[in-house]
Amino acid sequence: MQAFDFFNTLPNQLQKSILARTKHLHLAQGELLYEQGDAFASLVLIKKGKLSVYRHHETGQTLTLYTLDESNNIDVSSAGMHASCIGSAKADEQSEVLIVPLTDIYRLLSKNSDFQEYLFELFMQRNASLAQAMEDLRFKTLDQRVYDWLKQRHVSSLSITHEEIANYHGTRREVISRVLKKFELQGAVKLSRNRIEMIA
Amino acid sequence: MQAFDFFNTLPNQLQKSILARTKHLHLAQGELLYEQGDAFASLVLIKKGKLSVYRHHETGQTLTLYTLDESNNIDVSSAGMHASCIGSAKADEQSEVLIVPLTDIYRLLSKNSDFQEYLFELFMQRNASLAQAMEDLRFKTLDQRVYDWLKQRHVSSLSITHEEIANYHGTRREVISRVLKKFELQGAVKLSRNRIEMIA
Repeated sequence: MQAFDFFNTLPNQLQKSILARTKHLHLAQGELLYEQGDAFASLVLIKKGKLSVYRHHETGQTLTLYTLDESNNIDVSSAGMHASCIGSAKADEQSEVLIVPLTDIYRLLSKNSDFQEYLFELFMQRNASLAQAMEDLRFKTLDQRVYDWLKQRHVSSLSITHEEIANYHGTRREVISRVLKKFELQGAVKLSRNRIEMIA
Repeated sequence: MQAFDFFNTLPNQLQKSILARTKHLHLAQGELLYEQGDAFASLVLIKKGKLSVYRHHETGQTLTLYTLDESNNIDVSSAGMHASCIGSAKADEQSEVLIVPLTDIYRLLSKNSDFQEYLFELFMQRNASLAQAMEDLRFKTLDQRVYDWLKQRHVSSLSITHEEIANYHGTRREVISRVLKKFELQGAVKLSRNRIEMIA
């Protein structure tokens, strides 16, 4: 917990009691932290790694709602106590997370105004990112969404399967393969087995 | 403020100081409360009426993110202090709202655990509704979205223009007119000037 700024501003006694109730989890790549519909009333702090929170659809396809990493490191899975998780959280790579029960969060909110503001900002960032994702889904084509998503990774070469890209964007593998093939013909990417090289 | 349960549980002195800083606004139909991008760091409590929070797109089209009414009566427009509104809020009908500055909200959070839990639930409901809207945008056709939306109004007859439906769903008036015409041919609705009658 000491890695998180707000925590260090708390009174010593409160720090101790929160630490005593915090679980430290190591997740392997692909491991699930919680599932859509679960009652998992906890704050999730990402210490290391990357998680995706994604939505299941009755067709078996999935759509990523948002991702979590160290820069964007807190997730409230299902506050309050009676709500259920809006998606499933899976580790995209080996990750380390801290789990703090919501009851402790309520205590934190009472004692620490920095933490209140931090958590509010976080909720609003989540809302803003979901709103942007809605706008993109409505006004961008799948081609544009996939292309922008590849560009946003800021890497020249990406090790990923077409299946994984499909799961992110809520579509099927064959559709993504067609989109990527089109990008290749346009000279924007170069494809090899489970690897995409960005050219343009 | 007395119309809101959590408020009545607060100490008298706190109630008074919040009331002194709460603004009571009457909005005419079509009136804007805040605009996308505004810094409007307040809690908005809906006392009466209905508001839509919608997203502007560069094409001039708009997409409704969520709606607010008495049953779902609190909106945090742009918490924290530094964030900007994710959409514009407009009164769909004559409405009455209370505006509480965020600084007072932080005080409320410290003093009242019911309010904490209430606000957390609210944020999660908002997240859940945005996630559902993302899923619908991805996996439902526009026809299905418009049809489900009409059904969800639970009215046999609806006074609304095609333009208004288009603004809700992020599309153009002509597209909605075509969709409704198709519904009419299928015997699901009956159309007259600015009115839709549900049949099926």
